[in-house]
Amino acid sequence: MVRIVINMDMTTLAENAKKAAIQLTGAGTALKNEALARIAEALDKNREAILSANLQDLERSQAENLAAPLLKRLKFDDAKLNDVIEGIKSLIKLDDPVGKTLLATEMDESLELYRVSCPIGVIGIIFESRPDALVQISTLCLKSGNAVLLKGGREAALTNRALYEVIRNASYDAGLPENWIVLLESRDEVNEMLKLDKYVDLIIPRGSNEFVRYIMENSRIPVLGHADGICHCYVDEKADLAKAVDIVLDSKTQYVAVCNALETLLVHKNVAEAFLPMLKAALEKKVVEIRGCEKTQLIIESNPACDKDWETEYLDYILSVKIVESLDEAIDHINTYGSGHTDAIISEDKENISKFLEYVDSGNVFANCSTRFSDGFKYGFGAEVGISTNKIHARGPVGLEGLVTYKYKLIGNGHIVGDYAEKRKQFHHKPLDKRYQ
Amino acid sequence: MVRIVINMDMTTLAENAKKAAIQLTGAGTALKNEALARIAEALDKNREAILSANLQDLERSQAENLAAPLLKRLKFDDAKLNDVIEGIKSLIKLDDPVGKTLLATEMDESLELYRVSCPIGVIGIIFESRPDALVQISTLCLKSGNAVLLKGGREAALTNRALYEVIRNASYDAGLPENWIVLLESRDEVNEMLKLDKYVDLIIPRGSNEFVRYIMENSRIPVLGHADGICHCYVDEKADLAKAVDIVLDSKTQYVAVCNALETLLVHKNVAEAFLPMLKAALEKKVVEIRGCEKTQLIIESNPACDKDWETEYLDYILSVKIVESLDEAIDHINTYGSGHTDAIISEDKENISKFLEYVDSGNVFANCSTRFSDGFKYGFGAEVGISTNKIHARGPVGLEGLVTYKYKLIGNGHIVGDYAEKRKQFHHKPLDKRYQ
Repeated sequence: MVRIVINMDMTTLAENAKKAAIQLTGAGTALKNEALARIAEALDKNREAILSANLQDLERSQAENLAAPLLKRLKFDDAKLNDVIEGIKSLIKLDDPVGKTLLATEMDESLELYRVSCPIGVIGIIFESRPDALVQISTLCLKSGNAVLLKGGREAALTNRALYEVIRNASYDAGLPENWIVLLESRDEVNEMLKLDKYVDLIIPRGSNEFVRYIMENSRIPVLGHADGICHCYVDEKADLAKAVDIVLDSKTQYVAVCNALETLLVHKNVAEAFLPMLKAALEKKVVEIRGCEKTQLIIESNPACDKDWETEYLDYILSVKIVESLDEAIDHINTYGSGHTDAIISEDKENISKFLEYVDSGNVFANCSTRFSDGFKYGFGAEVGISTNKIHARGPVGLEGLVTYKYKLIGNGHIVGDYAEKRKQFHHKPLDKRYQ
Repeated sequence: MVRIVINMDMTTLAENAKKAAIQLTGAGTALKNEALARIAEALDKNREAILSANLQDLERSQAENLAAPLLKRLKFDDAKLNDVIEGIKSLIKLDDPVGKTLLATEMDESLELYRVSCPIGVIGIIFESRPDALVQISTLCLKSGNAVLLKGGREAALTNRALYEVIRNASYDAGLPENWIVLLESRDEVNEMLKLDKYVDLIIPRGSNEFVRYIMENSRIPVLGHADGICHCYVDEKADLAKAVDIVLDSKTQYVAVCNALETLLVHKNVAEAFLPMLKAALEKKVVEIRGCEKTQLIIESNPACDKDWETEYLDYILSVKIVESLDEAIDHINTYGSGHTDAIISEDKENISKFLEYVDSGNVFANCSTRFSDGFKYGFGAEVGISTNKIHARGPVGLEGLVTYKYKLIGNGHIVGDYAEKRKQFHHKPLDKRYQ
């Protein structure tokens, strides 16, 4: 059992995490997987303590009149605990993203260059009420060799502390440095962390759009994540309209509260009269409110859409609809109002598809399928750190490889640059068919 | 000849560049190379106008008493023009970094996922006096399909404008959108650009440390570059001391004014008495000032080093020297005072080498060779955008691939997520052995 120090200032906590991160760099796959196995086991063993901590959080939050959807997210029961334990077991089976040789070049005789993947360092994770996020992201960090500073919501304080203690103790028993994981428990600490770019290499916020935007605006540390998911479907004049109805319905209603759900539908003017009535009939069964542009309102009964609608992520049973003159107008609308998350074209025309996929400037661009497919698990990554609308570092659904960077290792035998500058020697840059050992 | 609009506000300029960037996404390799060839040709044709603009800049700057090293960097003569033209010709020969299929997976029958490299979008380039930087970086951006906002030093205003007009006209004649390249000419515009994260995706500053740090501290836009290059050599107790002398001498003196030059030498206590006098004799020939720790001063005559020396990038004929108790102390010193740029161990012991390369948290970690090797051209990348001490996106010397990101393209045939959620269908995630077409 490790001693958990509470009254330590944020800078010291971050400095300790940095030191642990350096040690963790050298932890091999076997040690990391052993630690993960022990964490899974310990979560199961401490089931009672964890669930009872969560009950106390729930009772207190109910008494404080926390909104029902937040209470639902706060709840951490047997089923959720089983889910996170299963998640850890699949994580153990995934390839270690650290130590991969990404490039090997013989620059000259006995001068070998390797680009090798390595952990990023210290990751700051900030999440709102869901306690399962604490387990998911901290174990992803462990697998990729990173230290973590964790900050959860105040309403989940006892659950988070219980989970944290289990993870910290189990991983320490397996041989990891004790400070690889640190729990922050006050809002002040978070604001301090946002300033510690000397120690913290990346921040991953999980929560509402406003929350993510707050983080992005208040830190110089790179942030991995997305603030908005304003996703579009464009029904082309060459669309198969029956397919289009199914795809739009699935994109909008399969799960409305998520970032890859459809928010705005664009319809080519030449198919609007045929398509919109079919769509309306289908959407009515799911009680979806339609907010249409002026032209849409002439074809189907709908509420009027205003400019604000084109830039709104409803996360609700509402769909804004706009009739466009051309594929170009659709692309331009998406690049103007979209959030670079996920956008789809429905068309049987190869050229139109290819143009849409090329010119729509989003992390995920789809043809003839639902926007709901943009997800690390559905993509087959085995894990998802988050979905990024950044263009730098990692874009779209991010798997474990989003938690690693690389370094160049150059091995010589007394080589100096003067010999090359003065032409006594020459580089030959041959690709090497071997891994760094 | 395109009309160059001068009095346009910064937001409009950036918005126009963003639109051009979208168009540029679809420019194929042939068109981009054609534009590069025309730029090379036009630079040659307009030699006289460019050099005479530079003469005016030089005369004005001399009259304003610009410091001699800055005047030297400002000078743009026939030789420098030939260099940048040669640079463009080699750039044409490099692989197009855009359109590469980085991953291809069949998620299910007729549901194909591709990760394809694409341009980042709009890059803001800010550089100090050297006008050749304008040509180098804007042509790297063109090759990688990005639009650029350029801001050079005031002292080079006429040279920069001449180069810009040549590049803009030649590329427009080749068929590129006119606004892919925009020249900013006032300091106010730069400060405005730093706020335009809606349009500008990445900033690459080239200049002094203070300048780069100013940019980093005043923008939310990601910055590619390094503020400091505090590079170390560590002479291990198992070092071949003759090799060590050569490597330290080359690292320190082959070119002192650059970021990958050596600043601090760490020496294991067991070899200090044998090594330091040999080194001192060699350094004396190059008139290098030694600032030693207390123990160093007991062995060789040297000025005293203070704490500040360990965190100083001299860029001059000065070397700070510290005797350490162990390899661990050396690693810890580097991780505490270094800037994550380039650090080398000199040792004949495989385990010590391997430990150093593993635990030193820098973009370039070397064994038995000079720190001066960390450079995109020496690494064989064919081009260098800059050297990054970031851990996010690109680290170490950055070639053209640092100017691209990727997007996921998913091609289905009416696929909806509901079928998978309700188990009517299952993903099979087979790797696809083909490229996105």
